[in-house]
Amino acid sequence: MIGRLNHVAIAVPDLDAAAAQYRDTLGAEVGPPQPEPDHGVTVVFITLPNTKIELLHPLGADSPINGFLEKNPSGGIHHICYEVDDILAARDALKASGARVLGSGEPKIGAHGKPVLFLHPKDFTGTLVELEQA
Amino acid sequence: MIGRLNHVAIAVPDLDAAAAQYRDTLGAEVGPPQPEPDHGVTVVFITLPNTKIELLHPLGADSPINGFLEKNPSGGIHHICYEVDDILAARDALKASGARVLGSGEPKIGAHGKPVLFLHPKDFTGTLVELEQA
Repeated sequence: MIGRLNHVAIAVPDLDAAAAQYRDTLGAEVGPPQPEPDHGVTVVFITLPNTKIELLHPLGADSPINGFLEKNPSGGIHHICYEVDDILAARDALKASGARVLGSGEPKIGAHGKPVLFLHPKDFTGTLVELEQA
Repeated sequence: MIGRLNHVAIAVPDLDAAAAQYRDTLGAEVGPPQPEPDHGVTVVFITLPNTKIELLHPLGADSPINGFLEKNPSGGIHHICYEVDDILAARDALKASGARVLGSGEPKIGAHGKPVLFLHPKDFTGTLVELEQA
C-alpha cells in the first residue's frame, strides 16, 4: 500500500533559525517560507536528493502544532508522510484493519495540493502518519 | 553537506507487532529482526522505494532506547539519519558552527557497517540527527 516517504515534518519554534541552520550549517537546498493558512502553518521545504524535510511553524492561534510545541519547546519530529496511489482505498483498508483515521475521515487537500489523511498515532507505534495520494 | 535521508528510526515497544503492521497493514517490504548487540538494539529494516524505516527495539538492559520508550510507551520517531560524503569533515564543520556531537566525538561503526555520529537534539530543533558516511 505505502510507497515513497514523501517527507518528514519537523515542528520548529524559530522558522528562520531552523531554515538558516539547514541551509548554512547542513548545506541543504532550502526554500522560502510558505504560509498555509488553511493548515495553520508556515512551511519551509528542504529538498534532499531522495525526499523532503518540511519545517513547520504555527500560523495563527488555532494552529494544529501549537500544542506540540508547548510540549516540545525545542521542536521535534511531528509526523512522517507516506505516499499511496489511492487514498480512499488506503483509508478503507486501514479502517478495516482497525486503524483510526483522524478528523472526519474524508481526505483534505494538503500543503502540496494533493489529498491527505492523518492516522492516529496510538495505532502506529506512537507515530503520527500522514498519507498523501501521490 | 547533507545528502540523502538514509532512514527514519522509530522506537517500538513490540517489534513483532510493528513489523507485522508495516508488512500486513501498510503493505511494505519488511526484513527480519536483526540483533545489533553492539548498539543495544534489535532492528527491522523496512525498505521503501526511496529510503528506509528502521524499527528499533531495546536489546539488553543498557539499551540506548530504554529511556525513550519509558517516556514514550507507545513508541515514536527516535531519530533521522542524513548521509554525508566525509563524516570527519562534516563533524569538524558542525563543531565549528557550535553544534555538539554526542559521545566521544569519534565516529562509530553503525548498524549498516558504516561510520556514524549523532548530533545533540537541542542543537537541531529538538531532533536527534544521525550522520552516516555513505
